[in-house]
Amino acid sequence: MSTIFEINATDSSTNARAGILHLPHGDVETPIFMPVGTAGTVKAVHQQELKDQVGAQIILGNTYHLYLRPGTDVIQSAGGLHHFNHWDRPILTDSGGYQVYSLSQQRKIKEEGVKFRSHIDGSLHFFSPESTIDIQRKIGADIIMAFDECTPYPCDERYAFKSMQMTHRWLDRCIDRYNDTTGLYGHEQILAPIVQGSTYPHMRKQSADYIASADMPINAIGGLSVGEPDDEMYAMTALVCDHLPHDKPRYLMGVGTPANILESISLGIDMFDCVLPTRNARHGLLYTSRGIVHIRNEKWKQCHEAIDPESSASTSRDHTLAYLRHLVISGEQLGAMISSLQNLSFYLQLVRNARRHILDGTFYTWKAALLPTLTQSA
Amino acid sequence: MSTIFEINATDSSTNARAGILHLPHGDVETPIFMPVGTAGTVKAVHQQELKDQVGAQIILGNTYHLYLRPGTDVIQSAGGLHHFNHWDRPILTDSGGYQVYSLSQQRKIKEEGVKFRSHIDGSLHFFSPESTIDIQRKIGADIIMAFDECTPYPCDERYAFKSMQMTHRWLDRCIDRYNDTTGLYGHEQILAPIVQGSTYPHMRKQSADYIASADMPINAIGGLSVGEPDDEMYAMTALVCDHLPHDKPRYLMGVGTPANILESISLGIDMFDCVLPTRNARHGLLYTSRGIVHIRNEKWKQCHEAIDPESSASTSRDHTLAYLRHLVISGEQLGAMISSLQNLSFYLQLVRNARRHILDGTFYTWKAALLPTLTQSA
Repeated sequence: MSTIFEINATDSSTNARAGILHLPHGDVETPIFMPVGTAGTVKAVHQQELKDQVGAQIILGNTYHLYLRPGTDVIQSAGGLHHFNHWDRPILTDSGGYQVYSLSQQRKIKEEGVKFRSHIDGSLHFFSPESTIDIQRKIGADIIMAFDECTPYPCDERYAFKSMQMTHRWLDRCIDRYNDTTGLYGHEQILAPIVQGSTYPHMRKQSADYIASADMPINAIGGLSVGEPDDEMYAMTALVCDHLPHDKPRYLMGVGTPANILESISLGIDMFDCVLPTRNARHGLLYTSRGIVHIRNEKWKQCHEAIDPESSASTSRDHTLAYLRHLVISGEQLGAMISSLQNLSFYLQLVRNARRHILDGTFYTWKAALLPTLTQSA
Repeated sequence: MSTIFEINATDSSTNARAGILHLPHGDVETPIFMPVGTAGTVKAVHQQELKDQVGAQIILGNTYHLYLRPGTDVIQSAGGLHHFNHWDRPILTDSGGYQVYSLSQQRKIKEEGVKFRSHIDGSLHFFSPESTIDIQRKIGADIIMAFDECTPYPCDERYAFKSMQMTHRWLDRCIDRYNDTTGLYGHEQILAPIVQGSTYPHMRKQSADYIASADMPINAIGGLSVGEPDDEMYAMTALVCDHLPHDKPRYLMGVGTPANILESISLGIDMFDCVLPTRNARHGLLYTSRGIVHIRNEKWKQCHEAIDPESSASTSRDHTLAYLRHLVISGEQLGAMISSLQNLSFYLQLVRNARRHILDGTFYTWKAALLPTLTQSA
């Protein structure tokens, strides 16, 4: 495969870099945040809004969810997820591993794969490295993920080591299946392996070296943002970035807050996904240019100022905090719709600005000045 | 007040007419359907979509809901509902009467007004003809409604008669209060009185004559579509239209299905509102150009055709029945968003087409040909 990643600039004070990722459904400017579209929809947001208002360049789908509902057959008969959900820009699917561990009931992990019960109807299913590649072939995302075990935090060292070794063996099986098959919809799919190793530096190093040796075009870091302190997450991320090739994009899975994202960019991460912006939106927590807004708070009751005058989302410029508070308190769906647009727009503006400042050479000072406002309450 | 209604054409075979209603926030082409925005939002639809996708020209707000939440003070401090919800086209508010009878607990109707408990928190409130005019002044809609009693169906004749007489006395009090006050936001507000009389022809005639004698620019018909057979509704509507002035718009409140709307247009109705399109959308019932679609039905599981290729809503042209079924079955908010756009677009296209055919002189034959497809299952 020809190179899919160009690095346009590297920050002199940090390990941040600005690049372009060439994918079958279009180019993605990095660093990038990928909105999570669990069941083939980014919750409460129209696909057209993701393009026009949020500026999303790539979105996620969850293999576990899509496999259970609507089912792989439905997506395949539609001609893949891009046709099914009418999203013509790049898509990444996870392998389903994370959800099997976090959502399903009665999962049983063996060398062969994972037996689990659906969280929807209790039905029995089995995921293996091979079957999750097959499913992801049928879903047809631009980037597909290797099947791994995501260990919890804290994790017993013995268990973490055995799990990491199994994840590595699973990777070999994923790569074999990947090499034995082709994309079903006339475009290539890129397989990304995942570094594990819990919070043990020697394992993280060992896993990063193993994953790097697979020589795939994108490398991912899993098993972080699972409850460990931020400092530990940053330490592991820094260590792993140091052991992954510089010339390939690095994807930190499931991270995180706006501050987490800026710090991780400075450590050399290029790609992020997280449910935080959309989930917090539905719970009334907004990321805005004035700081964090808890929209249910009485203080916004008669605040007739724009939700965020600096947002790329027109709804955030047109509608007021008082109106949004009313919608959220009344349980109106428009509340979740406007809040989700605000938070996703904030995240995408954050990574666009980060990219611009990396290109400008002003990333470090910009980040230092911005960090306090990212965590303060408005 | 100068005339606010122009009639552009009258159908030769029916009593249908096409007109233009001049309101403070813009012109409205009739016959018109007004989407219901109960709590200051048409559920699950962005205001911009109401304009661009649905082609809504005027929306409703519910005085009862807005009074309870966010409260009249909040809306007044925003400068009225138009500013509060960022909708710059005409708005109509009902008087709150209907919701007091249908939603609130422990209501007590007396000559002075109605004491009721909020359905939200059980708190005690009082609505009178005067207070509902005051509240509607603060909300600031283009059209405000007189406070009436909407009798249930069936209704004892004695009760219906006493109730109608009280509604007429309440109208006098509404008009007095209306004349003693002015709009708060620099534009006029039009007060519309409401014909009652249950399903008793002599009362309907008496009420229509009384309401006509008030000589207001718009006349409304209430107390229908409350459970009576369609034939009875049409008979009452025809009778009342006959007794209301020809040169003023007639508004049939709370009606109805697409077929109800076409039949009532042919009887001389110019304005409609109903929760059906949005409520049915949220329950998975779609009005489409191919007939009624129950989207949860298994038959749509792998139907990768557009939801409605003839819809004005781009989401209905871009997305498939299979995708929408998946969203609705998965409980995804996007399902309600796309379904609501479909149904509202269908209703607005229906009245736009009706208007065009009235202007063309082809209304009667068009209606006859269309009616069967409006009730058939796709």
